[in-house]
Amino acid sequence: MGAAADRRFLSLALALGRRGLGRTWPNPSVGCVIVRDGRIVGRGWTAPGGRPHAEPQALAQAGEAARGATAYVSLEPCAHHGKTPPCTEALIAAGIARVVAPLADTDPRVAGQGFERLRWAGIEVSTGLLGEEAARDHAGFFLRNELGRPLVTLKLASSFDGRIATATGDSRWITGAEARRAVHAMRMRHDAVMVGAGTARADDPSLTVRDMGATRQPVRIVVSRRLDLPLMSRLARTAKEVPVWLCHGPDADPALHRTWADLGARLFACDVAGGHLDPRSVLGALGEAGLTRVFCEGGGALAASLLNADLVDTLIGMTAGVAIGAEGQPALGALGLARLAEAPRFDLAEARPLGGDVMHVWERSRT
Amino acid sequence: MGAAADRRFLSLALALGRRGLGRTWPNPSVGCVIVRDGRIVGRGWTAPGGRPHAEPQALAQAGEAARGATAYVSLEPCAHHGKTPPCTEALIAAGIARVVAPLADTDPRVAGQGFERLRWAGIEVSTGLLGEEAARDHAGFFLRNELGRPLVTLKLASSFDGRIATATGDSRWITGAEARRAVHAMRMRHDAVMVGAGTARADDPSLTVRDMGATRQPVRIVVSRRLDLPLMSRLARTAKEVPVWLCHGPDADPALHRTWADLGARLFACDVAGGHLDPRSVLGALGEAGLTRVFCEGGGALAASLLNADLVDTLIGMTAGVAIGAEGQPALGALGLARLAEAPRFDLAEARPLGGDVMHVWERSRT
Ligand SMILES: NC(=O)c1ccc[n+]([C@@H]2O[C@H](COP(=O)([O-])OP(=O)(O)OC[C@H]3O[C@@H](n4cnc5c(N)ncnc54)[C@H](OP(=O)(O)O)[C@@H]3O)[C@@H](O)[C@H]2O)c1
Ligand SMILES: NC(=O)c1ccc[n+]([C@@H]2O[C@H](COP(=O)([O-])OP(=O)(O)OC[C@H]3O[C@@H](n4cnc5c(N)ncnc54)[C@H](OP(=O)(O)O)[C@@H]3O)[C@@H](O)[C@H]2O)c1
Repeated sequence: MGAAADRRFLSLALALGRRGLGRTWPNPSVGCVIVRDGRIVGRGWTAPGGRPHAEPQALAQAGEAARGATAYVSLEPCAHHGKTPPCTEALIAAGIARVVAPLADTDPRVAGQGFERLRWAGIEVSTGLLGEEAARDHAGFFLRNELGRPLVTLKLASSFDGRIATATGDSRWITGAEARRAVHAMRMRHDAVMVGAGTARADDPSLTVRDMGATRQPVRIVVSRRLDLPLMSRLARTAKEVPVWLCHGPDADPALHRTWADLGARLFACDVAGGHLDPRSVLGALGEAGLTRVFCEGGGALAASLLNADLVDTLIGMTAGVAIGAEGQPALGALGLARLAEAPRFDLAEARPLGGDVMHVWERSRT
Repeated sequence: MGAAADRRFLSLALALGRRGLGRTWPNPSVGCVIVRDGRIVGRGWTAPGGRPHAEPQALAQAGEAARGATAYVSLEPCAHHGKTPPCTEALIAAGIARVVAPLADTDPRVAGQGFERLRWAGIEVSTGLLGEEAARDHAGFFLRNELGRPLVTLKLASSFDGRIATATGDSRWITGAEARRAVHAMRMRHDAVMVGAGTARADDPSLTVRDMGATRQPVRIVVSRRLDLPLMSRLARTAKEVPVWLCHGPDADPALHRTWADLGARLFACDVAGGHLDPRSVLGALGEAGLTRVFCEGGGALAASLLNADLVDTLIGMTAGVAIGAEGQPALGALGLARLAEAPRFDLAEARPLGGDVMHVWERSRT
């Protein structure tokens, strides 16, 4: 098979894998395409909940056609006996002749052993193609493997001049319907949506994915040191239907803790640093609980805290063509910077019109 | 000639006309293409200073080939005897058979009479094609005709969160070299660059176009009620080489007025409203002096004043991937809005990456 065909089929496997983002944690979201004589005979991607994996589904579709075929997989196939038998064994048993994958898994239980096992069984293994793209797709899964925390996407929607409301709190609407719809699509591609207690108190948000045909809602997270969150809120009322996770400090009121647990929330005790919940501790707890991708929607205080701790991997701006002025509420809280050289810098990944607004996506500069 | 060819040649005439933007005031910047048997035989655009006009230059190039040819002109040819003989007479004398122009001039001395004169002489006249595009190109010229003020482009370059400096004033650099270069190109397409007294005092700006091969520098304007501007500044030192215009209030110190006049500045007495120079009065004075396109680069107080008075026609944002936080200096000053419904709204015209930054261009919503 030529290099162009390899790239095309592997690219398709990556696209299939991305379909599951936000729904497979703690597992990676993988895509698989089986190709025999230049024709696709099987396709699969990690099912919601993380099982079954992509490979066995694609192999099942291919049936006998898998014999002698090439499997394009968006990540190294697993080689360990977990809750499912290893995908390597399934590929071997099906008679796959060649495996093309962008890069190795960083899960210590896989980490090259999947490729090793395949080669050992006489299967040709090609890696490296589309490695950067795959690393981006699996960034949350890898971050959790390596640093124990999920990837953090911070979204801030604001006026032209970086405000989210007038001085009197009027904030409906700054960005338009298309931008708000895009936010729902972004929520869907994350394992969880997170806001600060201030936003939970002020907005009574539901934080669900709406009008997207979502089958599995992201977890809804509020960080609140003392758990003094409104008990008649939408989150409280729906905590039994869609998960609500609350990150709190050691000094949270035990009675409130019990009440929230009874309402159906899952509670995480985190450390305090500098008067607030330590964002590292919060993300560590969320990583331990299995999350790989967290979508933070503010408010300004939590956003500032995450930026200050250098915990924002992707920054998404939605800018509207409206001017609010300096008395308006800022989208981002205080960072306490003296010099510009200390300011967190991001590299532009994308900028484009979105309805009547501008969407801009930035990745943390790692230089 | 077919409609597609008409569109192509007229589009070229418009592009030629745009070359002169910022250099032809108080005249419009017009482009002209003469086409004979499908071939371009002459091209011209308004010369720096506004004379000679586009048509006689294009006709001179065409020579005898103009006889029976079509003239594509980006604006109605002038019909009045000003400092140059009317272009209509030149077109008639050259034997032009057909004139294609997008729209009529709004200068009361022309306003349809140019087309009338041509038709009277037996020349076929087509109008309406590319009218919107031409209206945009000539917007400054038309605004001055109709409202007596120049078009105002407001540019604000800021961090992701709408700041222009840290709390301590560190502002070098927020946006990158490409964005700053684009700003110089924008300055060049305007008749004048304008800043508030605060910026003149804080930054000692030179406000010139650099590294663009500019042959004619835009006028440099500072609005300063009392004229208390640094006398050892770059503007003061260079006012004899590149025009410096100062808009001041009735209460400006007469000694300072004299000093600035001696330094070479041109002074404009304007009205005061609400403690500041009235921006309507300022723009009225600038329109009277002939300006059609003004590029305002802040600071935040002047920008807010222009927005509040609904005098900003085009808003340009340059957003950098750096977060400064809420203690940073805001790009835009206070607007005093209570409700979002009162906030000035703009329609998105363009959004794209520019170097490592995002450029977004908005036009005032007129709905
Ligand atoms: N337009 C938009 O896109 C948008 C999006 C979100 C929010 N908003 C608006 O933003 C406002 C709320 O923003 P906000 O800045 O006041 O509140 P916030 O960031 O939502 O929440 C701040 C609160 O979260 C808790 N917290 C826990 N750990 C923290 C940490 N590490 N850093 C910071 N806070 C931590 C603290 O409350 P405890 O003491 O309880 O721990 C803190 O007071 C609301 O008016 C809302 O409408 C707008
Ligand atoms: N990064 C950027 O893109 C950028 C661009 C420009 C400026 N800046 C920064 O912005 C800061 C200056 O901004 P600023 O807001 O303090 O000052 P500013 O807007 O440049 O100037 C305000 C001053 O202009 C005069 N003025 C006259 N008519 C006015 C009117 N109608 N409305 C408002 N002001 C009027 C007033 O001074 P009088 O009393 O003398 O009349 C007023 O104090 C500087 O630090 C500068 O570095 C940054």
